[in-house]
Amino acid sequence: MNIQALVRQLKKKNDQKIVLLVGDGLGGLPLEPGGPTELEAAKTPNLDRLAQRGVLGLMHPIAPGITPGSGPGHLGLFGYEPVKHLIGRGALEATGIGFKLEEHDVAVRCNFCTLDSDGNITDRRAGRIPTEQSAPLADKLNDSVKIDGVEVIVKPVQEHRFVVIFRGEGLEAHVADTDPQRTGVPPLPAKPEDDASQLTAQIADKFVEQAQTVLADQPKANGLTMRGFSKKPKIDTFEEVYGVRPAAIASYPMYRGLAQLVGMELVGNATTIEEEIDILEQCWNDYDFFFVHFKYTDSRGEDGDFDAKVKATQKLDSIVPRIEALGPNVLVVTGDHSTPAKLASHSWHAVPVLLASDACRFDGSRAFSERECRTGELGQFEAIYLMPLALAHAERLEKFGA
Amino acid sequence: MNIQALVRQLKKKNDQKIVLLVGDGLGGLPLEPGGPTELEAAKTPNLDRLAQRGVLGLMHPIAPGITPGSGPGHLGLFGYEPVKHLIGRGALEATGIGFKLEEHDVAVRCNFCTLDSDGNITDRRAGRIPTEQSAPLADKLNDSVKIDGVEVIVKPVQEHRFVVIFRGEGLEAHVADTDPQRTGVPPLPAKPEDDASQLTAQIADKFVEQAQTVLADQPKANGLTMRGFSKKPKIDTFEEVYGVRPAAIASYPMYRGLAQLVGMELVGNATTIEEEIDILEQCWNDYDFFFVHFKYTDSRGEDGDFDAKVKATQKLDSIVPRIEALGPNVLVVTGDHSTPAKLASHSWHAVPVLLASDACRFDGSRAFSERECRTGELGQFEAIYLMPLALAHAERLEKFGA
Repeated sequence: MNIQALVRQLKKKNDQKIVLLVGDGLGGLPLEPGGPTELEAAKTPNLDRLAQRGVLGLMHPIAPGITPGSGPGHLGLFGYEPVKHLIGRGALEATGIGFKLEEHDVAVRCNFCTLDSDGNITDRRAGRIPTEQSAPLADKLNDSVKIDGVEVIVKPVQEHRFVVIFRGEGLEAHVADTDPQRTGVPPLPAKPEDDASQLTAQIADKFVEQAQTVLADQPKANGLTMRGFSKKPKIDTFEEVYGVRPAAIASYPMYRGLAQLVGMELVGNATTIEEEIDILEQCWNDYDFFFVHFKYTDSRGEDGDFDAKVKATQKLDSIVPRIEALGPNVLVVTGDHSTPAKLASHSWHAVPVLLASDACRFDGSRAFSERECRTGELGQFEAIYLMPLALAHAERLEKFGA
Repeated sequence: MNIQALVRQLKKKNDQKIVLLVGDGLGGLPLEPGGPTELEAAKTPNLDRLAQRGVLGLMHPIAPGITPGSGPGHLGLFGYEPVKHLIGRGALEATGIGFKLEEHDVAVRCNFCTLDSDGNITDRRAGRIPTEQSAPLADKLNDSVKIDGVEVIVKPVQEHRFVVIFRGEGLEAHVADTDPQRTGVPPLPAKPEDDASQLTAQIADKFVEQAQTVLADQPKANGLTMRGFSKKPKIDTFEEVYGVRPAAIASYPMYRGLAQLVGMELVGNATTIEEEIDILEQCWNDYDFFFVHFKYTDSRGEDGDFDAKVKATQKLDSIVPRIEALGPNVLVVTGDHSTPAKLASHSWHAVPVLLASDACRFDGSRAFSERECRTGELGQFEAIYLMPLALAHAERLEKFGA
């Protein structure tokens, strides 16, 4: 069943407001049998109180056993089937730095590399050149490369990575990677995989030719490879699908970009979670759906620092009263995936979910923890059902059939 | 979503080892409300200890309410969508006696029947003729029947059942059953259901003609009917799909055959579970996935003998320390379906699952039982997700998307 198509058909408008508070990588692991997870170790009096007036469950971002990247993790959370709506690497890279892709743009993820005098690659990552050195090179390419009939936009990313966007009419993105995935050989020419992408491949080759001239005197970053030619994915907007006016409040470029991809409106330029809540308060009357993103639960999990993830979780807890004070009809607190400090990476473990609303079948949960989520009213479910559940609790879905 | 296709794309190799220990028909039922299931009544100190350092759940081999046969039960366990990968009755019968089907073989399940002097069926099962009498007849057919251009292999099965394999080029298997499903009429001629299967139907008719001459003087088994014309199903191998080198250690022909169908390598010729573990120890360094099959939990359930199934479960428990001593990174203990002694048959009840690994979200389970599985971390899930979960816990799956 295509649940999103069904919800689209049943959506209705009212004045109820939904807040989706995402603690990135929220789910965790106990360090040993019998021990607490990060969420269980954290003192979270506000989330616990919320759990008592809501329902809990465990959510699979994609499917049991599958570990999502940030792109698929958030698409799933937003109710878009992540395997169907795959975001190409170039588009995700552009999105990740907050670049707003237009419909016809082709985005490509590029790596600076080192070439020897024969043009063969000696280092595929240009010695992992630091960002302070690589960013000015990307800017220089942006200013120098000129190709007839197409706008070329080059943006720095990090270390050896940068992104190029070709903006023009008639560009398709079915072009193979030019990275040969090994050293001792030259980068591959851009090879179109269909007729419609021939022009893009020609432009890519011209880009490489000019870029190599610009970079010729660089000791490390004197060449480049291109990967993941892609366009902005065709995604129906959040408003079209769910009938809500959505605001995105996030400080990290990647999540601002992902929210934009599904047509949310970016509000403010917060750098801290407190500033994000300031913005939430300021724009409360202008929207009826609010995606609020908190990054640090994931960052500290990725660091492998259990105690720091506990502290980040407590920080998340601390801003809950300010959200409650606004009186959202539905408040959902969850993550886009688990990032257990024990594994120091994203993982496949199911994500704790808390949904509080007056229409809940309150399930007697006493705290927000993986342990309590395991026996909560929402059971275990795939992330694409989260939006339907949130809309339902906000009475924003019609009955199906008479 | 096609979870197997996704896993195939994400698989990666490492040196972690996975053991899948299957207690056939493991799931049971209490004899009365409040009573224990067979698994709960059994003393299983080793499985209980394992449950304490793992996670539990309940698994549906196919879907809630559906009782699987051994074929679909194991295909589900191995992660192959059982409804999609249906094994034809002839192929399953050949597989069940451990016959290794080749790509072009057509296998047919046959029944000896009794014909009257007009050629009409008087008994569709030849008086359930005992195997001691029917097996020599099958062997005689194997020696006697000769058809130009095709090899005819006849193998005894049990009582009135035997299997015939036609081996040759250009044979397809879309031929209707010749069993009219009632007495008082003759067996039907073999009817091809498409052009490509005409040759097979002609061969089948020739087989019946010659066989009836050979069997003419038999008092009961003087005729035969044919059902389930089928070829070996086209199944991608375990190694292709999951990237593991799989070993199958099983004593019953059916399970050896099923493991072979998915491309596992049969190791040894054990007749007891102790011998199976001997073999596991011997081949431990040569593979990284081990399917170990224990039959008697199912057999005693099928007998309707609650106490004997309890004892078989305890036998299964007793070999667990020897497996643990090998240090598998992931140890899964489960069944292919439930076989409650109360029903004396396979059933649709969800199957208890135990997964132990250092990457588990330990769920506080204290024992391996249906009761504890009900609130385990893995929740309820379809069997096709078991392999993804096992691979994930062995860190053998890449992250999906960036």
